[in-house]
Amino acid sequence: MSILTLSPAWRALEAHHEIMRQQSLCNLFAQDTQRFNKFSLQFNNILLDYSKHPINTQTVDLLLSLARQQDLSNAITRMFQGDKVNDTEDRAALHSALRQENSVTVDGFNVMPNIKKVLAKMDQFVTAVQQGKLRGYSGQPFTDVVNIGIGGSNLGPAMVTEALKSYRSHHSLATHFISDIDSTHLSEILQKLNPETTLFIIASKTFTTQETMINARAVQDWFLTHGGTTKDTKNHFIAVSSNPVEAEKFGIHSDNLFEFWDWVGGRYSLWSAIGLPIALAIGMSNFYLLLAGARAMDQHFTTTPLAENLPVMLGLIGIWQINFFGAQSHAILPYDPALRNLPAYLQQLEMESNGKRTDRNGNEVDYMTGAVIWGGQGISSQHSFYQLLHQGTQTISADFLMSCKSHHPANKNHKLLSLAHYFAQTEAMMRGDNGDQKNTQLTTKSSIKQVTESSLKATSPHKIIPGNRPTTSILFKQLDPKTLGALIALYEHKVFVQSVIWNINPFDQWGVELGKKLAGIILTELEESAPVTSHDASTNGLMNYFKLNQ
Amino acid sequence: MSILTLSPAWRALEAHHEIMRQQSLCNLFAQDTQRFNKFSLQFNNILLDYSKHPINTQTVDLLLSLARQQDLSNAITRMFQGDKVNDTEDRAALHSALRQENSVTVDGFNVMPNIKKVLAKMDQFVTAVQQGKLRGYSGQPFTDVVNIGIGGSNLGPAMVTEALKSYRSHHSLATHFISDIDSTHLSEILQKLNPETTLFIIASKTFTTQETMINARAVQDWFLTHGGTTKDTKNHFIAVSSNPVEAEKFGIHSDNLFEFWDWVGGRYSLWSAIGLPIALAIGMSNFYLLLAGARAMDQHFTTTPLAENLPVMLGLIGIWQINFFGAQSHAILPYDPALRNLPAYLQQLEMESNGKRTDRNGNEVDYMTGAVIWGGQGISSQHSFYQLLHQGTQTISADFLMSCKSHHPANKNHKLLSLAHYFAQTEAMMRGDNGDQKNTQLTTKSSIKQVTESSLKATSPHKIIPGNRPTTSILFKQLDPKTLGALIALYEHKVFVQSVIWNINPFDQWGVELGKKLAGIILTELEESAPVTSHDASTNGLMNYFKLNQ
Repeated sequence: MSILTLSPAWRALEAHHEIMRQQSLCNLFAQDTQRFNKFSLQFNNILLDYSKHPINTQTVDLLLSLARQQDLSNAITRMFQGDKVNDTEDRAALHSALRQENSVTVDGFNVMPNIKKVLAKMDQFVTAVQQGKLRGYSGQPFTDVVNIGIGGSNLGPAMVTEALKSYRSHHSLATHFISDIDSTHLSEILQKLNPETTLFIIASKTFTTQETMINARAVQDWFLTHGGTTKDTKNHFIAVSSNPVEAEKFGIHSDNLFEFWDWVGGRYSLWSAIGLPIALAIGMSNFYLLLAGARAMDQHFTTTPLAENLPVMLGLIGIWQINFFGAQSHAILPYDPALRNLPAYLQQLEMESNGKRTDRNGNEVDYMTGAVIWGGQGISSQHSFYQLLHQGTQTISADFLMSCKSHHPANKNHKLLSLAHYFAQTEAMMRGDNGDQKNTQLTTKSSIKQVTESSLKATSPHKIIPGNRPTTSILFKQLDPKTLGALIALYEHKVFVQSVIWNINPFDQWGVELGKKLAGIILTELEESAPVTSHDASTNGLMNYFKLNQ
Repeated sequence: MSILTLSPAWRALEAHHEIMRQQSLCNLFAQDTQRFNKFSLQFNNILLDYSKHPINTQTVDLLLSLARQQDLSNAITRMFQGDKVNDTEDRAALHSALRQENSVTVDGFNVMPNIKKVLAKMDQFVTAVQQGKLRGYSGQPFTDVVNIGIGGSNLGPAMVTEALKSYRSHHSLATHFISDIDSTHLSEILQKLNPETTLFIIASKTFTTQETMINARAVQDWFLTHGGTTKDTKNHFIAVSSNPVEAEKFGIHSDNLFEFWDWVGGRYSLWSAIGLPIALAIGMSNFYLLLAGARAMDQHFTTTPLAENLPVMLGLIGIWQINFFGAQSHAILPYDPALRNLPAYLQQLEMESNGKRTDRNGNEVDYMTGAVIWGGQGISSQHSFYQLLHQGTQTISADFLMSCKSHHPANKNHKLLSLAHYFAQTEAMMRGDNGDQKNTQLTTKSSIKQVTESSLKATSPHKIIPGNRPTTSILFKQLDPKTLGALIALYEHKVFVQSVIWNINPFDQWGVELGKKLAGIILTELEESAPVTSHDASTNGLMNYFKLNQ
């Protein structure tokens, strides 16, 4: 047993879980008319409702005791003041500094002047591009930007540019993302582009990321064979990296090198110059609003009592589900279609951060850490995997996200219909249905096939929906830059809260190194013609099947 | 306890699991040099390798005993011969008939002549469109097709058209998919289209699907306000439906109505006229090859002994992971980027089919059924969530899919790199890494930050990768229409195999009805101005927050 699972707060929650797991959500609501008020929080325009979880006031008290036992408040302070909370890499984790205004010190060095400098450089660059002062080699203004990056250098910018596409103006550049090793996709994108009016951003912290550099070189080749010259490269290729030496070797001009730092993790980097494609799409003023939204959430997180703190409560509810109810996965279900890339973004943020098995003291944990994050757009998913959510044998916890206001008044009817489904689903998940005939008549597709009395009777057990499925609702006024910034920071801090409870480092990712190393060895073997015998029989067998069928 | 969990075959597997869970995959390979040959199967150009699972010959024997106990062979026969295996809806499940050549009888009626008739109608239509014999209202040939459908009327066609895009010719129509309630996305698509040269397919089994009909009407409005007339509608709007009455009411001409039948489930329908966008993209000859590939897998499934039967073994390995190792989720990881939509497709296929809690006898099950299906493109996912796969506290089983040959010789280097990662990852998942210094030196990002001796020592527990993660590899010669058809049928039948073991009906989806019903009630309430009080406090609170912030 570990220190955590033997601790008083943990044990108290285990005992309490024995009681709560027998409660139904509907009964909990029936017992307490104040339940929604007690178990929901508002911050700015964001409503976080966690009342549809199997909790009561004692649950919340016990979860808060656990947070205090794990010294959460102190951990938050340490992260924000630049302590080396990423201890396995001997680094601070200061994505919050990227949106701060006050000084933050790392190793006795105030990092804010450099942050401001890069931000000012971004501003100057984006404004010059959008106003047509910086132009392509033929003198035409830039119309398109291609971001070449993978993981954290792709998912954040791709998610935000899609989410905020209503904030594009006539100055906006069209954004394209090249991420995977996919020469077909790369050709499809390049085919539509004019090299004279296209900017290319190479985004890689190390500037050695294999996939990104292969794509960058392919794009550079295309540029040079479609009218661009080596001299023109310096106006069309931008680098975002913490490795200026490698960037310069590639041919990036120092004016076009945007730096970030080792204390910014890839999956926390959209606030840095990694956000350049966002700024080129929606303008610097909106990018500043995105930062301001995150800053507001930072302030809320660092100054609000734990019980009223949105990231803290979102994190603790997750702990309750994962560690006490045994939830192995958690669904992210955005009903605002502009958030279509949120599940993929949060997959990296949460799973790469908290998919850990060794605690900060170097001991193997004996409790669950990060869950599998998955999901999809709400409406489409209702026609896909919701069957399992309603009638499967697993209880899956889920976040339902939605905005109240539509950006275009003409879309109000569409919006209302989506909202109706948004509200209906968490209600349905909680209430369930006893499958009786009255309900059934309303719900069968009677226009297609008349269901007879006798078949109705036989099938009704199949129509029972047990309900009692826990859900979190996150409802906000409008999906604007400030709200989105706050939402992303909400999830960043939720992940941190859970890492503190679990006593793990959410800022390293040692688990991904082995595959890279083995791929290097295998690549050499694939290029040779001889059959492979150096691996296990399965890996040998697969590689030799390839050799016979290539 | 249920009949299943009390049965001899199940109990034998439980006892056997106690032994096998203590085995490591590496040891199993060390003990048996024939392991790869024993636990992999080939069919046509598809290699299925399940040797990297915690199994031995006894495991396979016991799983096959379970299959025999559940009368799998008989169940397969019943499905293929048109018995009403979808008993809660009193229907057959005959997606296999859509690709058959021999007669199949439902209710004493041979369904093949109708299938052939619709296929011939599709052929005629697609050929006429592609050859420019059928043209838009201004006399220009069609260039684009927009598919309006959701769930099974979207996911299959969207997945296949993307997967087979290398098979497009100069006759191909560009394909677009409108699915969610997303007026912004709808406008984005329409903006790029010319009404004179665009075909619209409205795909809905019932022709009453709310989301699809809203989109269909919005598209029709656009058509009529951008140059098209009501008379022109009949040449530009196509319906795929089993409800001709409703389709005609919408204004669809009978020449443009493509029928399918109540014995085709939505998630199994891409082989029917629901596949029209596929055929318009890659041509009828390739669509026939897709059917032929599935037909070949059908024949393999129905005629091969269970032990050498790919869908059977894929299904049974899943049973072993879900019911005995407790896997709650299963990852789908395609390394061929053209299969990018496969995880979303399989999410519906598997979760909507087997997300059930009531067995065929009407009893609530006491064993796990369908797992959560999730995943993403392999290479990108390595830079996102693989950290959790390697070092998380859950053991997650996964299918790794890849093709050997690239469609374009110029892409060979890109392909080799992807293949190297494909082979390396299942090896890494199995082998793990003891985190010692020698490995570490190879893997730290030394160019960025020099790791000192002392920090190395302190961090090495964090570099330990436990390994022993089970994976299935599916490697095939080339992603061509015939292979893709076989692959899809492989998964369809895998799902059926598991449903037979679990004694559930994989062809209904009663769980999705309640949400639709509640949404109808809520929509009315949202349109009223008064505060809502008729629901639980949470649903009321959320709806009233919306009313204040709309």
